Amino acid sequence: MYTYDQLKSFTQKIFLSIGCSELDAILAADTLVSADLRGVDSHGVARLSGYIRLWEANRINTTPNVEVVHETLSTAVVDGDQGLGLVVAPKAMAIAIEKAATCGTGWVSVKNSNHFGIAGYHAMIALEHDMVGMAMTNASPLVAPTFANERLLGTNPIAVAIPTGKEPPFIADFATTTAANGKLEILQREGEAAPQGWIQDNKGQPTENPYGVQEGGALLPLGSDREHGSHKGYCLGSIVDIFSAVFSGANYGPWVPPFVSFLPVADDQVGDGIGHFLGAMRIDAFRPADEFKSHMDNWIKRFKSAKPVPGQDQVLIPGDPERAFEKERMNSGIPLNEKVEKDLLELAEKFKVEM
Amino acid sequence: MYTYDQLKSFTQKIFLSIGCSELDAILAADTLVSADLRGVDSHGVARLSGYIRLWEANRINTTPNVEVVHETLSTAVVDGDQGLGLVVAPKAMAIAIEKAATCGTGWVSVKNSNHFGIAGYHAMIALEHDMVGMAMTNASPLVAPTFANERLLGTNPIAVAIPTGKEPPFIADFATTTAANGKLEILQREGEAAPQGWIQDNKGQPTENPYGVQEGGALLPLGSDREHGSHKGYCLGSIVDIFSAVFSGANYGPWVPPFVSFLPVADDQVGDGIGHFLGAMRIDAFRPADEFKSHMDNWIKRFKSAKPVPGQDQVLIPGDPERAFEKERMNSGIPLNEKVEKDLLELAEKFKVEM
Repeated sequence: MYTYDQLKSFTQKIFLSIGCSELDAILAADTLVSADLRGVDSHGVARLSGYIRLWEANRINTTPNVEVVHETLSTAVVDGDQGLGLVVAPKAMAIAIEKAATCGTGWVSVKNSNHFGIAGYHAMIALEHDMVGMAMTNASPLVAPTFANERLLGTNPIAVAIPTGKEPPFIADFATTTAANGKLEILQREGEAAPQGWIQDNKGQPTENPYGVQEGGALLPLGSDREHGSHKGYCLGSIVDIFSAVFSGANYGPWVPPFVSFLPVADDQVGDGIGHFLGAMRIDAFRPADEFKSHMDNWIKRFKSAKPVPGQDQVLIPGDPERAFEKERMNSGIPLNEKVEKDLLELAEKFKVEM
Repeated sequence: MYTYDQLKSFTQKIFLSIGCSELDAILAADTLVSADLRGVDSHGVARLSGYIRLWEANRINTTPNVEVVHETLSTAVVDGDQGLGLVVAPKAMAIAIEKAATCGTGWVSVKNSNHFGIAGYHAMIALEHDMVGMAMTNASPLVAPTFANERLLGTNPIAVAIPTGKEPPFIADFATTTAANGKLEILQREGEAAPQGWIQDNKGQPTENPYGVQEGGALLPLGSDREHGSHKGYCLGSIVDIFSAVFSGANYGPWVPPFVSFLPVADDQVGDGIGHFLGAMRIDAFRPADEFKSHMDNWIKRFKSAKPVPGQDQVLIPGDPERAFEKERMNSGIPLNEKVEKDLLELAEKFKVEM
C-alpha cells in the first residue's frame, strides 16, 4: 500500500529524470496518479514503465513546444510536438477554457500527442471555471467495428464533467467498448473466462477466452453485437476518432500508433501521433450559473432517490464510484499489484530515484 | 405504396389545416417524411395523428414565436414557444450554423419544444455548409438507468453528420438505448419475443415480453446490463438530457412531457416543454476543408474495405443503411402498414384533405 503523495512524488521524479521540466513533471504526475486515486488502475502508475519505454524508443519528446497551429474564436488545433499526452492534453484544455471564457465555448483538437491518461481528469479541469468539460482521445486499434474481422478503432473514451451546486459533480468517463482492456487483464490474472459479448476471436467469432485480443481477436464496441446495438458503440468510437484526429491531422483508425514500444509505428502514417478532442462550455453561456446548478442538484437528487431493482441499494450518479475510490484511497492508501510494484522498483533502480 | 411526394404533400396539407404557416408546414412535412424515406418508420407519418392529438389537447402551438432568449457568440438558448419540434429544431439549427459561420462553432439548447422527428435530419442540415452537425433531444421517460426500477430517461438520441469529399457523408443517428421503441412495435405485430437485454419488467427483472414496457417495465440503456456497459448508455442518455434541458430550462428526466396526448403533463413541471441540443462546427475552423474531406474519404474507404466477419458481406459506414432505404423508396415508393394507412385516411377525412 502506498500513499497518493508517495506515488505522485515518485512519478514526478521519474518524469524529471527523463528530461521533463519541473512544471511538466508535476502536471504529468498529477494526471497519471489521478487514475490510481480514482480506481482506474489500468491507466495510472501501471503505465509508467510503458511511457518510459516509449521515451527510450524516441517516441516521446520531453521538452515539447505545444502550440496552436490553426484557430478561430471558439476552436483551435494544437500540435503536441510528440509530448506526453499527460501534459499536452491539460494545456489544450486550458486553451479551450480560455476560448470559452471569451465566446461561450471552446473546442480544441490535438495532433502529434501520446496517451493522455484518464479522460475524466481533463474534463474535470473545466469544473472549477463553472464550465462543462469534455475530453476524448483515440488510441491503439484494438476494437472491431460491427461486422468487421479487423481491429480498426481504439477504446476511444469519452468524458463529460458537469458542474453542480451542493451535490458532487456529474462525471461520466467511459471507453466506447463493452469492456475496457483493464478488465480483461484482471480476468487473465484470476484465470477466469470473459463474459460473452466482450471480445471476438481471430476468426471474428464470439469467444470467452480472456486472451482473445492478444491472440489476434478484438474488443467489441459498446452494445456487443448488432442485435444489442454494437453499431451504436461503433458510431461513438468513430466520432471520437474523427473529432480527435481528422479534425487535427493526427493518425486515425488502424493507423493510430500503438502504446507499446515493441510494436512499430506503421510506415504509411496518415497524420502525426495520436489525437485528442477537448471542449469547454460556460454554463452561463446558456443560463445563469446558479439556476443551472440548482437544476443539476435537482436532477441528481431525483435519480439518486429512484427505486432500485431488487438486489441493489441505490441508483448511482456518474462519478460516484470513482469518488468512493478517491475517498478510500486518500485515507488508506493505494494498493499496487505485484507486477506493477516490481516495474516501479525497477524504474527506481534505473533512475536512482527513491520510491 | 405511396410516393415520397404524395406523403409529403399530404402531411404539409394536414399541418396547414391545423394553422401552421405555409413555410412551417413545408418544413414540418419535410422533417417528418424524411424519416419514412430513410427507413425510420416509427418516426415518420406514423406519428402524424399523434401530433394532431397533441394539438387538439392544446399542447402544440402552430404559430410559435421561436426566439433566442440568452446568447453568447457561440451559444444560444431558444424558446420554442410550444411549437412543433419539427419546425423549432431546424430553426435552432439555423442559428447554430450562423454562429459557427462567425466564430467556428455554434451550440443551441432549446426549451419549450415538442417531438422533433429524427435527429439525423437536423444534424444533416449542417453538411451543405461544410460543417459537422449534431442534434440531440430528450423524450418521454421510458428508460430505466442502470440499477433503477423506474423510467427516468427517454430514448434520447444522438445524431452526428460529418462532411466528406467523394464518399457519401458519415451520418450516425441512434437512440441511447439498446433497442428503439419502434423495434418493439414490430415484435408485437409479429408476435415474437424480445431479445434478452432490451427491456426489464415492472419488477426490474429482465424479460422477453415485447409488451414489457407498456406493462410498467422499461427500455434498457445501450449496453443492456452492468456487465455489458449499461452504465455507459445511462451516461449518454443523461448527457443528452442535461444538454437538452438543464442548459435550456426545459423539463428533464421523469418530468419530460409524454408524446401521447392521453397521458397528462406532470403538475410539478421543472421547466418548459421538452428540450433539444443542436451544434454546428465549421470543418475549416480546424483545418482546410479539402484536407479534412480527403482524410474523411480515406477513413471511409479503409473501414468499408475491412475484412468482414463470416456471414457478412461488408462493414457498413454510419448512414449507409438509411441511404439504401432512401434510394429504394425514392424509386419504388414508401410502404405503410395497415394501421398507419388507416390513421392517415382518418386524418384526410377529418380535415377534408386529399391523400
